[in-house]
Formats: sequence, structure tokens, C-alpha cells
Amino acid sequence: MGLNVDLNGELCACAKGPRNLITDVPGVRVGHVTLGGDSPLGPLHTGVTAIVPPGDCFASKLPAAAYVSNGFGKSMGLVQVNELGSLETPILMTNTLSCGACFEALVRHALTAHDEIGVETGTVNPVVMECNDGPINTIRALAVTPQDGLAAIDAAGESFAEGDVGAGAGMTCFGLKGGIGSSSRVLAFDGRDYTIGVLVLTNFGSRDCLRIDGRPIGRELAAADAAAAHDRDKGSIVAVIATDLPADSRQLKRMAKRVTIGIARCGGYIGNGSGEIVVAFSTAGRIPHWAGETHDGVTSPMIDTAPRLNDNAMDDCFRAVAAAGEEAIVSSLAHARSVVGRDGRTTWSLRDAAARAGIALDL
Amino acid sequence: MGLNVDLNGELCACAKGPRNLITDVPGVRVGHVTLGGDSPLGPLHTGVTAIVPPGDCFASKLPAAAYVSNGFGKSMGLVQVNELGSLETPILMTNTLSCGACFEALVRHALTAHDEIGVETGTVNPVVMECNDGPINTIRALAVTPQDGLAAIDAAGESFAEGDVGAGAGMTCFGLKGGIGSSSRVLAFDGRDYTIGVLVLTNFGSRDCLRIDGRPIGRELAAADAAAAHDRDKGSIVAVIATDLPADSRQLKRMAKRVTIGIARCGGYIGNGSGEIVVAFSTAGRIPHWAGETHDGVTSPMIDTAPRLNDNAMDDCFRAVAAAGEEAIVSSLAHARSVVGRDGRTTWSLRDAAARAGIALDL
Amino acid sequence: MGLNVDLNGELCACAKGPRNLITDVPGVRVGHVTLGGDSPLGPLHTGVTAIVPPGDCFASKLPAAAYVSNGFGKSMGLVQVNELGSLETPILMTNTLSCGACFEALVRHALTAHDEIGVETGTVNPVVMECNDGPINTIRALAVTPQDGLAAIDAAGESFAEGDVGAGAGMTCFGLKGGIGSSSRVLAFDGRDYTIGVLVLTNFGSRDCLRIDGRPIGRELAAADAAAAHDRDKGSIVAVIATDLPADSRQLKRMAKRVTIGIARCGGYIGNGSGEIVVAFSTAGRIPHWAGETHDGVTSPMIDTAPRLNDNAMDDCFRAVAAAGEEAIVSSLAHARSVVGRDGRTTWSLRDAAARAGIALDL
Amino acid sequence: MGLNVDLNGELCACAKGPRNLITDVPGVRVGHVTLGGDSPLGPLHTGVTAIVPPGDCFASKLPAAAYVSNGFGKSMGLVQVNELGSLETPILMTNTLSCGACFEALVRHALTAHDEIGVETGTVNPVVMECNDGPINTIRALAVTPQDGLAAIDAAGESFAEGDVGAGAGMTCFGLKGGIGSSSRVLAFDGRDYTIGVLVLTNFGSRDCLRIDGRPIGRELAAADAAAAHDRDKGSIVAVIATDLPADSRQLKRMAKRVTIGIARCGGYIGNGSGEIVVAFSTAGRIPHWAGETHDGVTSPMIDTAPRLNDNAMDDCFRAVAAAGEEAIVSSLAHARSVVGRDGRTTWSLRDAAARAGIALDL
Repeated sequence: MGLNVDLNGELCACAKGPRNLITDVPGVRVGHVTLGGDSPLGPLHTGVTAIVPPGDCFASKLPAAAYVSNGFGKSMGLVQVNELGSLETPILMTNTLSCGACFEALVRHALTAHDEIGVETGTVNPVVMECNDGPINTIRALAVTPQDGLAAIDAAGESFAEGDVGAGAGMTCFGLKGGIGSSSRVLAFDGRDYTIGVLVLTNFGSRDCLRIDGRPIGRELAAADAAAAHDRDKGSIVAVIATDLPADSRQLKRMAKRVTIGIARCGGYIGNGSGEIVVAFSTAGRIPHWAGETHDGVTSPMIDTAPRLNDNAMDDCFRAVAAAGEEAIVSSLAHARSVVGRDGRTTWSLRDAAARAGIALDL
Repeated sequence: MGLNVDLNGELCACAKGPRNLITDVPGVRVGHVTLGGDSPLGPLHTGVTAIVPPGDCFASKLPAAAYVSNGFGKSMGLVQVNELGSLETPILMTNTLSCGACFEALVRHALTAHDEIGVETGTVNPVVMECNDGPINTIRALAVTPQDGLAAIDAAGESFAEGDVGAGAGMTCFGLKGGIGSSSRVLAFDGRDYTIGVLVLTNFGSRDCLRIDGRPIGRELAAADAAAAHDRDKGSIVAVIATDLPADSRQLKRMAKRVTIGIARCGGYIGNGSGEIVVAFSTAGRIPHWAGETHDGVTSPMIDTAPRLNDNAMDDCFRAVAAAGEEAIVSSLAHARSVVGRDGRTTWSLRDAAARAGIALDL
Repeated sequence: MGLNVDLNGELCACAKGPRNLITDVPGVRVGHVTLGGDSPLGPLHTGVTAIVPPGDCFASKLPAAAYVSNGFGKSMGLVQVNELGSLETPILMTNTLSCGACFEALVRHALTAHDEIGVETGTVNPVVMECNDGPINTIRALAVTPQDGLAAIDAAGESFAEGDVGAGAGMTCFGLKGGIGSSSRVLAFDGRDYTIGVLVLTNFGSRDCLRIDGRPIGRELAAADAAAAHDRDKGSIVAVIATDLPADSRQLKRMAKRVTIGIARCGGYIGNGSGEIVVAFSTAGRIPHWAGETHDGVTSPMIDTAPRLNDNAMDDCFRAVAAAGEEAIVSSLAHARSVVGRDGRTTWSLRDAAARAGIALDL
Repeated sequence: MGLNVDLNGELCACAKGPRNLITDVPGVRVGHVTLGGDSPLGPLHTGVTAIVPPGDCFASKLPAAAYVSNGFGKSMGLVQVNELGSLETPILMTNTLSCGACFEALVRHALTAHDEIGVETGTVNPVVMECNDGPINTIRALAVTPQDGLAAIDAAGESFAEGDVGAGAGMTCFGLKGGIGSSSRVLAFDGRDYTIGVLVLTNFGSRDCLRIDGRPIGRELAAADAAAAHDRDKGSIVAVIATDLPADSRQLKRMAKRVTIGIARCGGYIGNGSGEIVVAFSTAGRIPHWAGETHDGVTSPMIDTAPRLNDNAMDDCFRAVAAAGEEAIVSSLAHARSVVGRDGRTTWSLRDAAARAGIALDL
């Protein structure tokens, strides 16, 4: 469950989905594999989070886009997502140096499901996103394996944990323990409801800058000397947007850009070292792989018809993305627990830091 | 009429449209205003060319995209075309320093047709494209007026001249007289025919580099010392693609990029000083201005349905654009006449230069 | 003078420049022409604002970049600024439909100063930025002339007014009277001080969303029913960044993007209808027009040496841009006066709206 | 050695480097690992090619850019290269599905050389490029390992083979055997010589379209029914440009784009299925990792001075890139040998196909 308090209602007054999670978008599932314990090089606090769209993504692709707010990041697959305007695999999030392992996981996942890849048809475009959990996790251990990636996909369901789990296990946000957060909003167009869901992996922000609904919590923590202070914001945030609105790649990219608004409202400023990247997809208007060809006895036309959203609807979508993005970030902080990192230093959760500083939170 | 010889059949074997012009796309019209005579600062060889889509572009916008191959250019309106994926005015081409006048022409054209602009609804996004005709025309005279722009729109029809007319009056291409050229191709998908048309304003290229269907005509002219030699390719080329295929902005931008192939096959290399810019639009799947609102008693839905082309069709479209682009460039050379420029120097037409050099042309 | 209160110190602790204006960057000047009175179509509240870099911009260009946050705008010249990474004219801001007039103003300005343009060398790339002042101004009157643009350049100085002046005369921001605002920050690298200045033309935002330093002023005004409520944010914001830091085009574009942070902190969300565009330039490391050529008896080398900023410095620059951008927006509100628009409706200033609502402001 | 015949002299008259290879750029080395034999799933024809810049790329980064001509590709690391304008690892080329293995190879390579990565400083951005060798190689075997990637780096030298080696082992170009090709050009500015080198991995093109210096070899082969015909161009081409010219990221991206000219001159048209991607780097003006910080007792300034190339030099650079790009493609064909692929079908070399068709080649 996402946050159950209300933030910033002036930005977006529409309702939250029933779980207030990205999985409120019908068919979307999320799964985690969390790695702990010790490696030969030191303690592990890392993992993989899978965001799994409904159905067969390769045979029936999803309209999609990737937006790079700041490109100090190693996310994979974005170029093809934008060229073709589609997504054809689940999305894996992990630590920076484990992207190769997750790329291989998605390749193996596609090869298993599709004998024709690399033989009868082309290859597949894995989408992997990452943040650097090096300050807490022994990232040099390269602990994540392709099997972990596949296990995260297998673990995907409609309910999932937030905070220091999966790819979020070792992340730091505003000098506090960050990780996975999610939120959703429900919008109505032409008398029908649609859902926009956001999932973030938070690893950014300087402690002093944290704001929650305008309240300068970071300054309050700083005044109490609670939680770690960072001279510089060196981390990243990556996000996934899912929706059942019939949006094309251009429109999804426009929506993706508005996650930045949520980030800024929390106190982020798109730091130099941030891999600040958003991938957005729609589960409506799926795109057939075999258009113009005959496959398995079925001939698909080159031109079909599809539902189409007018850009006049964008303002409502933008507000929903900004509000859900902001709330997802706060949710990642609210759900995370304090963690003792690879160097023995504690990264406090927001709740623990507030308690230590004697600050009351309404989360 | 475009060229009636066949170039480079291996690139695209599909048929030409009946006129082999951009106006083979149903409803698309082209008009010219050509300015000659003298100005207080010197002789004029300039003008305006209007590419006019069918119907009311503002109320019912056209899916569109702009592609910048090289940005040493002053074309206007491209940013909004790409943000919203749509075109809402005719397109005017003119000389570089007259873009402001053509911007105002398109503003006045829209204000006349739509009382609601600037009052009940927002503004309008004029699209103006340009090349620098300074070597032949007295460009400092700023001779083009908003009235010329409006007259070019009014003059638009299905038949139009190519070569040294309209915006092409003062252009130079491969050291020869360039200007307006056009071509079209017909493609079939799912048993129905569609047309892709290209119109170019050519003002680029070094004489030595000119090739026609692989034949190094430029080297032949150089050997005969015919036509002017240029140390550097300092000019530009702008192009418009029209189609009745149901393509969205992303797909139209992909098509627009392939004009570069036609340019390269003629001997261009996208020079440093080139404003090499393509705007592409589709007359299918038009986009209502008033979606989600009630206007003139009609309520338009926020979500409609539209025909949609699969990207598997792109290879055929790309080949058609590249071939028609190449042919349009050659057509601009083939239709132009020799011109004595503002400095008294003659810029020879391809035909005259070839005749002077004793070179046989098959055009 | 910009604001003399302190906002959001946690984002950027560095000092403001002596004027807290963009003109704190040495040599940068700003000038306004404000148009009022009546036109045949109705009352005028519009104008032109010129941002004038030091020296001869054409002969000695400035490293520059343009960033499009949202492209529902008609700004001119951005394509070439990004292709060549340089600015070669002053920048004019005006209302949307008057961009053509300001384009011509900049052409005339360059032609007057440079006899060689269009004769011995190429053309010139005018940079014009705009917002739509139609709700207050009779924008259909097309009242701005090229002479107004030239007069704004001539009026440029180190001191300049903010609020409802120049291009800001008819702008609306958060349902209040917006317009011109500016701010600056001083940063130290390697023991030397540098200045970053921001100037904004504000015409965006929904009343309810306005926040000042986290305080939800918009909600407070809404509760008091003060100032106009807007269902949708349909407006724009454009901005110019100037600095004497030696930054190249890529770095300047990175800085330009961070104006979005300031916008978001004030309550903006990059609306669908926003032309949200930033042009940034550096007065250091200027770029010779005639490199590799001999002009006026001087031969300029093709390769020179220039100071170069490392991207490790970006975080400080980003914080300065975000903070100065936020403050410039607030300054535009703080300096504007209430205006009775073309339809007789009053657009209240922030001060008047707060007074009417009985809300205390600390500005 | 690259080609020793002259192609298309009208495009670029400047001299070739002594080897006519990318390694003519001082300090640049290239290495291959070629994998053959059988896997459990079928025969292997694949490998890795490493392009290794001089010195420590992480501590002293190289100005760099990535240009995506068509994004149907899975290359890694491009986002950060463009954000920061720098390259900090060698570049590995391999088959599409082995990108993850090569990512891990570059991670391990950097971790071995730099104890501080992931501990004292951030992570590292591996750059991997790929084409799909599935038609010849058993790509589903995922045969390439991180050790192969490291071995390719270790094997790098100034002399290297072209054709069906390394990543080129299984590639197909114009229906013929493609693979690795390279070429270089020497330019003079301000009285000093500089080198631009290009290396391509060719896997694109329809047989009928092949042209060599304007000659329609593809049509000739088709007439003789020599080599395989392909209905569609489904492949890719990736390229690396190296130079010792002091070019920044923006300029390198401009150069990278001109590889497209070489591709078009050979008969390519940037097919829908092409991952057509170019990475360009300069060995001049290197960028210190630790700027503004003290590391190993050395304090690096935040602002240094660097040589700077004026864009007036670009035309010469563009012509060199286009000509070397074209020649590198032809060189890949000229050096490749006929190969019997995983399905027992022979992909003929250009030489063998020409011989079978009785066509004389001048290569």
C-alpha cells in the first residue's frame, strides 16, 4: 500500500487507486528479489525489482517512451524504446554495476518464451534501470545474477512491498534510507476511468533540501543534526509510469517528464550526478510484432485502428504524474527501515531520524 | 510535372504519382509568388512558396513532425510541431531574412479565418522554412512582405512550377541554379494505395560533388570548367513531406530523416552551414482542436479512434522518401533556368552548364 | 532591484549579486518598450524586452544553448543556437503574435552593424522568445513593430524595471499579474567569483498551486476567493540565463534545464499549453566569426584555447539557477501592479490580492 | 591495412593516414576475439572487437558523443556519453544478445584498475555497441563471456585485421559477408596535421542497393543472381570515430552524424530495423575525473584551459568522416571471406560473389 495521507491536493485533486500503487493499472505486477548477507568483498544490501506489464510484451508490444531528465546513468534499452515507441520486455531495476546481469536475465526470459527470436525474427530490447547503491551495498561484489532477475519477474504480483526491498535495498534518499515507492491516480475522460501509476527507485537528494508538502523537514533534521549530511547530491532516481490510457510514445514521454515536478517538490534539483530517467508505458493500443506478416497462420494488417488520446487531456495527466511521483518518493522514505551499511554506518529511515530529532511526522 | 526519367530504381521500385509532385497527395496544393525587378539596394530574385494542406488546419490539425538534419537555419515553428505532433497552418518557404514577414503572413491568415484565436482560444503556430539566397538575390532589401506570403497561399493549386520560382528564385545548388523540385511515390498496404510526396527548396552542394544516379556529373563539369566552383558548400536545403498514410509524429519524423539519403545520393554531405530541415505531415487521422470541449454546439471526445500504421511498414516508406527526395533535388536542377544575379554573375542551370561543357544529359 | 528577502536558502546558500538582477553579469544589459493605450481592436498591454550581451555578438559570438521544457511555444532561433552552440544577436521577448516583428528588428539591427551580412558572409540568427498575453492584451492588434524591438535594444541598461513592463505588460502568472522578474547568484571556483543571472517572463500557473518558499499562498488566496481562478494553466514561461562562467553549449543547456526546478517550487507543473523555454549564454570564451579566415586584415586561427569548466562544478551551478529562477518568478509577481485588461476584468497583483484577502506577505 | 584504392575523391581530397585505419590516430588501439566452433545450440561465428583509447580513460576522460541515426539497437552507455560529453572506458562491439557480457567485462576492467570505484567515487559507464549476427551465428547460444571482452581489450594493438573477425565474424552486409572495416584521413589546421579515423561494424543493406564509388555493383550482382537477395534490409551498422582534433561533444556529435553520408553513398537508406549508431571521441583536451577535488595528493582546478576547434572547420571534418566512413564500409566487404552460416547457407564475400558473377572489381 502506498501512502494513506494526502499530500499537495492543490496539484491534483483526483482520487488515488485502491492500492495507491502502480499495480492499480490493470494487469501490471511488481516483484522483488532482495540480496543480503555477506559477499567475499563485504556485506550486501542490493537486489532486483521487476515491473511486469500484462500479457506477452514481445508479440504484443506496449506503446512506450523513455525520458532522460539527467543522463548520468546507465539504464539500458532507452534508445530503441524511443525510436519505435514501444516496450517489448518487463523492466528490471537494480544496482548500477549489475545492469549486465539484468540485461542477460531479460534476454533469457525472451528466448525462453519465443523460439523464433534470433532465428525467424530479430532480437529483443531489454530495458534495465539502475541507481548506485555503493554507499550502503558492496557494489563491487557484482552480486546480482541473471537468475535473480528472472526470480524478480517470477515473484511479480499485484501486492508488493515498498522501501528497502528489491533494487531499493541499498538506496539512500535525502541522506535517509530510500528505495522503492509507488502511488497511483484515477482520471476520468469521456465518462470512463483510467489509472496512472508511478513506481520510483529513490537514491537522490541532499538532506537539507527535503520537503514534504512544503514543510522543510530537511532543515528541521539538520537543525537537530539528525541523519547524515551530504555535501553533494550524488545519487539518482529512476521511475516507471504505467497507464491504461491510450497514449502514444510522444504523449508518454511528455508525461514522463513531469516526474521531475514531483522530484522538485520534494527538494530535488536534478543533480549533476543523477541518472534521472523515466520509462512510461501504456497497456492500451498494443502493437503487434507480426504486422504485415503471416505468423502462426494469422495475417496481421499493416494498418489497424487504435484509440487515441487528445493532447488537451495532458494537463490532467501531468498533474496526476507529478502528484503520484511526489507521493511515491515520500512513500519510499516512509516505508524504508534504517540500515547499517557496508561500512558499519547507519543510514536512518525517515521515521527513525524524525524520532531521534523529536520531530512529529504525519505519515 | 516532376522528372519523367527513372533514377535509382534499386532504391525504390514503386510507381510515381500521376504528376510526380507533392500534390499527388490528395488535397495538397502548392503556390508561388516570385519577386524580381529592382530594389533600392539591388536586383531581386526571391519569393515565397506555400505548401497548403487540405481543409482547416487549425480546427482539424494534421499529424506532423520536424526533423533537423543540420541546424544552421532559421526555420520557425518546429518546436511546437514536435511537442504536439501536429501542424496547424500552411507552410511557407522564403529567403532567410524574410522569415519574419512570412510568420506575420501566417498569423494574419489564421486570424482572418478564426475569430476565436487570441480571444476564446490560444494563439497559432506558423511554420516557415528558409534558405539563404544572398549570393543571387539582394537579400538585404528584405523585399518579401506579409502580403506576398498570403498571395502564395492564395495561388496554391495542384499544378505548380518547379525550378527558379517562388522561394526558389534565387537559390544555388551544386554551383548551379537550384530552387523548387518535387516528386512522389505510391505505396500499397493492405490492398490500398497511399502516396508520399516530397517538395524541396535546394540551395546546397559543391559543384564537384554532384552525382545523378551515380554518375559524377559534378566532376565532369569541373573537368570542363563549367559553372561556378565553390570552395565550400555554404547553403541549405529544406523539404516538406506530405502523405495520406496514417502516420503519427514519431513515424513522420523517421520518414523526414530519410530525405538525407536522397541528399547524399546527389552528392551532399550535410555541410556545416546548412539549414537542413524537413517538415512532414499526414492528411490522415486529423486531430480536433476542440477535443474535450464544446465548440459551435459540438462536443468532441477526448479519446477518439484513428487509423494506425505499424512501423514494419517503415522500410517501404523510407525507400519512397529517399527516392522521391533524390528525384526532387534533381528535378529542381532540371527545371531551373540560368540566372544573372545581383552581382552580374551568371549562375548556370544544369542544362546550360552541361550544354556549355558538351555533356549529354538524360533528363 | 530583485527581491530583497531570502527564499529557500537550503537550495543555494551562495550570495546574491549586488542588484540581484541578470545585469549583475558584467556587461549584460536589459531594456523595455511598453505599449499601452488603445488600438482599433481594443486596449493594448504589451511590449518588448531586450536582453543585450556585451560587445559585438555577431563578430564575437557567445557560447549558448536553448532548452525546451515544453514546446507549446513559438520562440525563434533555437535550432541554430543548439547546432552551433552560440548566440549572435541580442534576445528579444514579446507577445506570441509579434515574434515576426521582433525577428525583423534583430535582422535590421544586425544588417545595420554589419555590411558584410548577406554579401560577404552568410545571414544572422535572431533569437526571439514569447508568451501569449491575449487574456489581458488585444493580441490580435499585432501592435508591436520592428521599431519597438530596436527601441528596446537601445533602451538597455544595467538597471531595469520588473513586473508589468516591456514584454511583461500583459502577462498573467498563477492567476495574478505576472511579467518580468530577475535574480542572480555569485559562485566561487578556484578562488574567483562568477555570477549567474536569470531573467524570466512569467505567464503560467494555476492560482491554487502558487507556493512561496513552501507556503501555499495559492490555497490561501483561493480560500479567500481572491484573484481569478483558472481551471487550467494555459500559459507559458520563458527565461534567459547569463553567466560569466566559461561554460560550453552542453553545460549551458544543463543549467537551463534547472529553471524547471524553480518553476516547480513555485507551484508550476509544466502545463500542456506552456511554451517553457530557456536560453542560456556565457560571456566568457567568445567564438570568433571569422576563424580560419582573414577579415579586416586579421587572420584568426581555426584552433584557439579557451577556459573550460569541469562538470563537477555543475551542482553548484544548478542550485544557483534553480534558486535564482524561483526567486525571479516571485520577483515578477512582487513587482507587478494590478491591471485592467482588454475585457475590463482586473488581474490583481500578488500584493493587491493578498491585501484583499487579508493575507500578510513577507516580500 | 584499409583499402588501398581511391574512392570518391570529389568528396574529400585529403590524404589517408599511413595505415588507413582508425589506429592512425595516435594511441588508439583495436583488438579482436573471434569465436567459432560449435555450441550446444549450433555453430558459432561471433566475437568481440575492442576500440581502446590511449591512457587511463576513467581518470582522464575523453571528450565524446554518441549519435543515433536509427535507434533499433541495444548499444549501451550512450545516454551518459551525451550528458557529460565524455567517454571513460574502452568501447566493445559484439553481437546483440551479448551486450550484457561485454557490459560486465568493462565493469570488471574498470574495477581492476580503480579501487576507488564504488567506494570513494561513483561507478563507471561502459560503452557497448552491437549488431545482430543471428542469420549466420547461433546467437541464442549467448556464447560471449566477460572474459572474451577482457581478452579483446588485452589483444588491442595498432595493427588489426578487418572483415570477418571479432564482432564482425557473423555479420552480413548488402547480402554479402560484412564485418569490421576501417579508414582514416589526415587534415591540416593552422599548419598542423590531425587525423580522423573511422571503424565500422557492417551488418546492413539490401544486395541490390550496393554501390561502390557510384557503380551499381548490387544491380550487377543481382543481374547475375550472385549472392543472397534480401527482401528487406533488417540489419544495422555501428561505428566509432576517433580523432586527435580538439573537438567537444557537440562537435563530435556533428561529425558522427556524417557517417550516414558514407552509408548512403554505399547504398544504405537507414532501414527501419537498423541500430545505426556512432560514438565519436577525441584524444585531445582530456577531462580530469577529480576536478575540484584533491586525489592522490593532487588538487585539480575546476576551470582549466583547453584547445578549441572552431565550427568553421567542420566542413573539412565532415568530408573526412563521410569519405572515411564510406571507405571503411567498402573495406569491411573487401576484407571479409565467404562464410558457411549456422543453417549451412553460404554468405559470399564480395570478392567471391563478384568472381562467381564474372564481375571485375578494382579493390
